Amino acid sequence: MIIDIHGHYTTTPAGLTAYRKKQIAWMDDRRTARPDPPAISDQEIAESIERNQLRLMDERGEDLMLLSPKASGMEHHRPDRSVARDWARVSNDLVHRVAGLFPGRFAAVCQLPQTPGGSLVEPILELRRCVEELGFVGCNLNPDPSGGFWTAPPLTDEFWFPLYEVMTELDVPAMIHVSSSDNPAVDTLGGHYLNADTTVFMQLVAGDLFARFPSLRFVIPHGGGAVPYHWGRFEGLAARLGRPPLRDHVLGNVYFDTCVYHQAGFDLLTSVVPARNLLFAAEMLGAVRGDDPTTGRSWDDTTAYFASAPLRPADRERIASENARTVYPRLDKVLS
Amino acid sequence: MIIDIHGHYTTTPAGLTAYRKKQIAWMDDRRTARPDPPAISDQEIAESIERNQLRLMDERGEDLMLLSPKASGMEHHRPDRSVARDWARVSNDLVHRVAGLFPGRFAAVCQLPQTPGGSLVEPILELRRCVEELGFVGCNLNPDPSGGFWTAPPLTDEFWFPLYEVMTELDVPAMIHVSSSDNPAVDTLGGHYLNADTTVFMQLVAGDLFARFPSLRFVIPHGGGAVPYHWGRFEGLAARLGRPPLRDHVLGNVYFDTCVYHQAGFDLLTSVVPARNLLFAAEMLGAVRGDDPTTGRSWDDTTAYFASAPLRPADRERIASENARTVYPRLDKVLS
Repeated sequence: MIIDIHGHYTTTPAGLTAYRKKQIAWMDDRRTARPDPPAISDQEIAESIERNQLRLMDERGEDLMLLSPKASGMEHHRPDRSVARDWARVSNDLVHRVAGLFPGRFAAVCQLPQTPGGSLVEPILELRRCVEELGFVGCNLNPDPSGGFWTAPPLTDEFWFPLYEVMTELDVPAMIHVSSSDNPAVDTLGGHYLNADTTVFMQLVAGDLFARFPSLRFVIPHGGGAVPYHWGRFEGLAARLGRPPLRDHVLGNVYFDTCVYHQAGFDLLTSVVPARNLLFAAEMLGAVRGDDPTTGRSWDDTTAYFASAPLRPADRERIASENARTVYPRLDKVLS
Repeated sequence: MIIDIHGHYTTTPAGLTAYRKKQIAWMDDRRTARPDPPAISDQEIAESIERNQLRLMDERGEDLMLLSPKASGMEHHRPDRSVARDWARVSNDLVHRVAGLFPGRFAAVCQLPQTPGGSLVEPILELRRCVEELGFVGCNLNPDPSGGFWTAPPLTDEFWFPLYEVMTELDVPAMIHVSSSDNPAVDTLGGHYLNADTTVFMQLVAGDLFARFPSLRFVIPHGGGAVPYHWGRFEGLAARLGRPPLRDHVLGNVYFDTCVYHQAGFDLLTSVVPARNLLFAAEMLGAVRGDDPTTGRSWDDTTAYFASAPLRPADRERIASENARTVYPRLDKVLS
């Protein structure tokens, strides 16, 4: 069984984009009416998934995908809290409907209504709604709601603790995932995403968050940004800071997905990071589309790299599905 | 012959630190006297190098090091332009004296007096002084003088073109190197440095700078940040942007150093990036100190990883010294 723990609903029906445009206009001019959530039919949703994510899942042999709203579309840099709340609710409700339309093929992960400098009250309420009322299995947490300017405190700061307390209570992990960059110097897909993965890992190495929250779990996407490639650097920096080796300090709580889009990078990841810390993923249809001309396969077809990676059978099972069920225990309900 | 193209004078005599403290105080209170450059003897300089960089170079078999002022000490985020100019001059003069005291063992690379939002007039004057009067072979260019907030335009923006024109005229490359992070969310050594490498590479992929400056050369340090590990991602993103493959689009002008501190990462780098684009380096004594307990060797002893890397002899020569002489043609004078 293969569980892909990192998918986004990037192929939403046009009604969602139209709604978002109205929302953004309404932020600038409150004299217009607050936009109503879009009316999107089950058929529209089903087609948008069948032709895209589900088609590729079947072609590639993925059984289940953890699906969350489009990451770059979260746009946490827009400061209006009530709009952020509406936007997260509408986006999460759509993902919930996908999961309902294709039982056993999708599990829902939620977007949080974060804003730059905003409190965590609304994100916590939305997390509770999604998990307790709708059966979501996790959330995406944006460590930089400013969109590329990094104005939020590090994830080890007590600012974030109220959210961690609820995550712990609900027993759900967070994938650390930024949204689009609002900074012209930093490209969203080729800069900001990878930088965020690296930045947050180092925040966790420098801090001691998991002593306070021993069951808190973070998934760092995109193969951990620069981290596995620079594993020796991070081990050395941890030692320089007087921290324990990475395995003892952060690897009890931090996991990486396998969204690395060439064989050499994929193999580095699986050779450097212990198998118990890896969760299979592709992030399709995501940042990178099109085919590698040297192989004729899609860049983001990580099932191919996974099949070619030299792994022991037990480790392969861990990465394919076992770790996902450990990190996201609420998956049990989806799979039973 | 092994040329290490990435060394910083991190072991400067105490007089330099004392001078910097006075400078920072003077920025805040101009009623005090403008501090005089520190009086540091040749003997102090010689000892600070012999006990540190030179000792390790001899132990590890490095023949020549390209030495620049301490990267985190550049502190371009401090906005006073006249202080930035003094600080760069004093720091560069010290590096120049190191090169003079140990002929054939060090070549000097300069710090530029950049400031957030500041013009490039002072950086260009200092670059000319260092190269034309003092025989420097290159410079370090900071793409984010704000220190972790990324307020400068991307390096493909015409803001930077006057500097590129002088670099082209002088035939010197720039290493892309940020300084210390002034952003509490972003660690200097474990976040900001690697993020900058990745960010700038993506700026270059998204732009078309080298069509305008065909002989401009950039060295991206720390093994290219996250880039080689995510080579497939960057190839895919280039295709998505309608850019040519990386080899045709940026690899005629962009080089990576080999500062990757474990064998698996080092081997990934040399297997993914063409040998003609790699320059040997260790960045010692730099970010990462101490020994890998599993090997008993220093994390930053890249000579050991280099010796173990499966490379053809011709490629090994290229990485060890030939590429350095091509990218830094003014090295010829130092080596003759």
